[in-house]
Amino acid sequence: MSDNAKGIDLVIVGGVAAGASAATRARRLSEASRIVIFERGPDVSFANCGMPYHIGDVIADRSKLAITTPERLRERFALDVRVRSEVISIDRRAKTVRVRELATGREYDQPYDKLLLAPGAAPFRPPIPGADLPGVHVLRDLGDMDRIRQTVDRGIDRAVILGGGFIGLELVENLVHRQVATTLVERNEQVLGPLDREMTLPLKRTLEQHQVDLRLGRQAIAIEPRGERFVVRLDDGSTIEAGLVVIGVGVRPENALAVAAGLEIGPRGGIRVDRTMRTSDPDIYAAGDVVETRDDVMGQPVQVPLAGPANRQGRLAADAIFGREVQFRGTQATAVLGLFGTTAALTGLSEKQAEAMGIEYATAFIHPMHHAGYYPGAEGMTLKLVFDPRDGRVLGAQGVGGAGVDKRIDVLAIAIQARMTVFDLEQSELCYAPQFGSAKDPINMLGFVAAGLMRGDHPQWSMRRYLSLPIETRPYSLDVRTPSEFTAGTIPGAVNLPVDELRSRLNELPQDRPIAVFCQVGQRGYLATRILRQNGFDAFNLGGGYRTYLLHRDA
Amino acid sequence: MSDNAKGIDLVIVGGVAAGASAATRARRLSEASRIVIFERGPDVSFANCGMPYHIGDVIADRSKLAITTPERLRERFALDVRVRSEVISIDRRAKTVRVRELATGREYDQPYDKLLLAPGAAPFRPPIPGADLPGVHVLRDLGDMDRIRQTVDRGIDRAVILGGGFIGLELVENLVHRQVATTLVERNEQVLGPLDREMTLPLKRTLEQHQVDLRLGRQAIAIEPRGERFVVRLDDGSTIEAGLVVIGVGVRPENALAVAAGLEIGPRGGIRVDRTMRTSDPDIYAAGDVVETRDDVMGQPVQVPLAGPANRQGRLAADAIFGREVQFRGTQATAVLGLFGTTAALTGLSEKQAEAMGIEYATAFIHPMHHAGYYPGAEGMTLKLVFDPRDGRVLGAQGVGGAGVDKRIDVLAIAIQARMTVFDLEQSELCYAPQFGSAKDPINMLGFVAAGLMRGDHPQWSMRRYLSLPIETRPYSLDVRTPSEFTAGTIPGAVNLPVDELRSRLNELPQDRPIAVFCQVGQRGYLATRILRQNGFDAFNLGGGYRTYLLHRDA
Repeated sequence: MSDNAKGIDLVIVGGVAAGASAATRARRLSEASRIVIFERGPDVSFANCGMPYHIGDVIADRSKLAITTPERLRERFALDVRVRSEVISIDRRAKTVRVRELATGREYDQPYDKLLLAPGAAPFRPPIPGADLPGVHVLRDLGDMDRIRQTVDRGIDRAVILGGGFIGLELVENLVHRQVATTLVERNEQVLGPLDREMTLPLKRTLEQHQVDLRLGRQAIAIEPRGERFVVRLDDGSTIEAGLVVIGVGVRPENALAVAAGLEIGPRGGIRVDRTMRTSDPDIYAAGDVVETRDDVMGQPVQVPLAGPANRQGRLAADAIFGREVQFRGTQATAVLGLFGTTAALTGLSEKQAEAMGIEYATAFIHPMHHAGYYPGAEGMTLKLVFDPRDGRVLGAQGVGGAGVDKRIDVLAIAIQARMTVFDLEQSELCYAPQFGSAKDPINMLGFVAAGLMRGDHPQWSMRRYLSLPIETRPYSLDVRTPSEFTAGTIPGAVNLPVDELRSRLNELPQDRPIAVFCQVGQRGYLATRILRQNGFDAFNLGGGYRTYLLHRDA
Repeated sequence: MSDNAKGIDLVIVGGVAAGASAATRARRLSEASRIVIFERGPDVSFANCGMPYHIGDVIADRSKLAITTPERLRERFALDVRVRSEVISIDRRAKTVRVRELATGREYDQPYDKLLLAPGAAPFRPPIPGADLPGVHVLRDLGDMDRIRQTVDRGIDRAVILGGGFIGLELVENLVHRQVATTLVERNEQVLGPLDREMTLPLKRTLEQHQVDLRLGRQAIAIEPRGERFVVRLDDGSTIEAGLVVIGVGVRPENALAVAAGLEIGPRGGIRVDRTMRTSDPDIYAAGDVVETRDDVMGQPVQVPLAGPANRQGRLAADAIFGREVQFRGTQATAVLGLFGTTAALTGLSEKQAEAMGIEYATAFIHPMHHAGYYPGAEGMTLKLVFDPRDGRVLGAQGVGGAGVDKRIDVLAIAIQARMTVFDLEQSELCYAPQFGSAKDPINMLGFVAAGLMRGDHPQWSMRRYLSLPIETRPYSLDVRTPSEFTAGTIPGAVNLPVDELRSRLNELPQDRPIAVFCQVGQRGYLATRILRQNGFDAFNLGGGYRTYLLHRDA
């Protein structure tokens, strides 16, 4: 870029994550340009990820959610910010947008050289009676947040949240924090749909521990007003009466402008863009929750409404508009949830996605502590790795537990971005002091387990494969834990022979059938498998051990 | 590997990190082998990184430091563990080692097919009078730990720690925790030598806040007994009287066996090994603190006594001994320290190493919060990136601050392992929810700053370069913060013009000389630099702003 480039007329539709990032970046690149932001709402660049926590009074001061204001954007970045101004159409030939001032109804045309569409995505209201009632809320903007909070402030005895995804769960946490009895209705048999089901067990447990009335596998079929309150009717015939109903079942890209303008749209409604965030019109770019982007792991088109990618896409679109050679690499859907002190995080491909795509994959489970167990305060977690068994490439990872989950998923997110393999994870060199990690970090352990499977050193079955067999056709199942662990609970049909006695009691085991070995988390089972195979038995380890069995059984 | 391979005679010298890892791995690979571990001390596989915390009573239960016991290794892994048995020589032709039982003095020869040397490194005692006195401690094994703890338990009024590296600082923290007034003597002008000096300021501050008597740039020249106590004499003529003296000035590889056996040794005393951990004798391997290994970033030989690499080297040596195709990739010296709640961590190349090597490098500094600032509890940190300005490759990183430092350094450790560039960091997709990170994570911000420098969008000078100039030859220095920030303290000679007034007051600035712009952390300075350059000024930003200036001024 030349530092004295002639400016352009840049118009941006939407002033939150992608739009605001694009505008400030554009200003840095071009002092001479006229940059106009149209925002339908009254606020720009607010911290929408913080809204549940203001409802919960965790972020008590509402003004903290204003990352910046129209005034600040004008003053510091010389941006022409027009709030409560809705862009209602695009004239691609004339290169103008039609704008309606919401306060006055006045309409006018605004010319552009380049146009960036960043209107975001709108919460979806399911097509059931009552979903549109006033007082049945969604949570998209500060106005929604204020209305929900005011309802809570007035005092309610119960809330119903429809949808157990990120926003639904964050709302549940914050309502419980406000002492509101809360019902969570989720049509799937698990919360947090992007996770594989067994990984959600700790979330289910923590919801139960916090007295959340959890209705999995259920859908609302109607919402009926009853005075100031509502009756939510579910598909099992039950009803819940509540002072607050919030719908959080997903979002849809706000594609109306783009559709009307004839821009290319993907099958799920997102605006099609190339790697420079350019739409099918060379003078129109799009960024944020409104676009269809590309999964960086498998390459398929995806729609991922996340704040991080939206911010980076906005910045990158500004770069492209001002002639930078940039390419959005795609998204890997890295996300994290905090729920009553339990953390769940994921990046890349889940097992269910891999299965749905019909690709070859393998999994590894470990249950490590977040730092050395000998140092006080170590918290447990479960990590699951999805990898390609042909070359060991890391495809995805999920973690759930206490402290340190987000760290491991961030590390694995970078490993996925870098196309690393499980052999690289074996050799990773991460921070170790007893308060921070382990000499063999959980990341190394994941590498050891997965690489052992690939090298054939450590023959494993996934617990999922084992449990998919009818109990009578399962292999001989050998619990190598101690008798007291065995007595406290084991896999039905398993026989106990502690690993430390294995070498002297080999004669008790069958020579003529496969043996599925397991312990608590997988380590003793691994050693036992090695001992058995070297003595001629057809043994394999059940990856992740009894703890992984419990996840599958109870999730 | 065949699962019914004939066993070998494997002898391992040293039973702690590398030795114990190798032995258990070897057993998994070969049930048929005879595996003998000789350990001079009474303990195997103890948590040496936990020892300072037992002295500090943070890990109150001493038995927690026993990761395993000789009995457990015998029982579970069928290892022949011989403690208090010193290997005193190697007969390479006969393929035997000579062993002395320390309790009885009995000596015998033990044959080997393969020998693994993992004797570790010994604390260095400087050649000054009194360094060898009984009661002048080092901290290598549980016996040392017990002696130090017993001294503290008896009640002492003051301790002197010689050496401000990892172990020295951990000891200081734990002694202060035990209410012992502590003097720390460090011959360099900074603590924690692997860090660049300016990054150590927060450590210095936290030591001062905890009333540690810090003597930087000083060396002990003598230690004199005075009854039950000692007088430590420093090179500035001062003396300190103390009930406890601990030396922690570094370690030396225990190479005597290898030297006597004629194995190749590197210039710093480490045993030379190839990427399979094999020494110059094809039947002898070495692993852990005793070896010279290879820096994975720049490829030069290094000695890095760290638990993580030691454990992985031991495991990998066992793999190689049993015919696996494995290669140790080298080390990148990732390390972390906790000090009174402040965390310091690093990975890869430091600036001073880059300078000493005479290679081209650039730096980026940022001062982010560890999660979204609008969510309660955000803690600050400083991150420093060292990268190659030719291609953007990440060479090293350092972090110091509160929560989340270890996470960012772990992420950057993986980025270094993967040969990532600063452009990759721009596009990293990490966990974001307000309790865990930011929509633009500190990792992204580092990428933005460094990539902006490389693209020429964001002309920067390092603060170091700026401060290396005599004050009268420095560029025109422009503080673009608010008047109140300016008044509270600025860089000597700087003029104040707030960024928000810059566009309207350009006429106040000189057209004929370079302008060094700075703000508090670098962001407003970046915008100001962009405004100025687009208006024809020769402006550049001082990377990391006034906070980075303070690090350089006060460290």
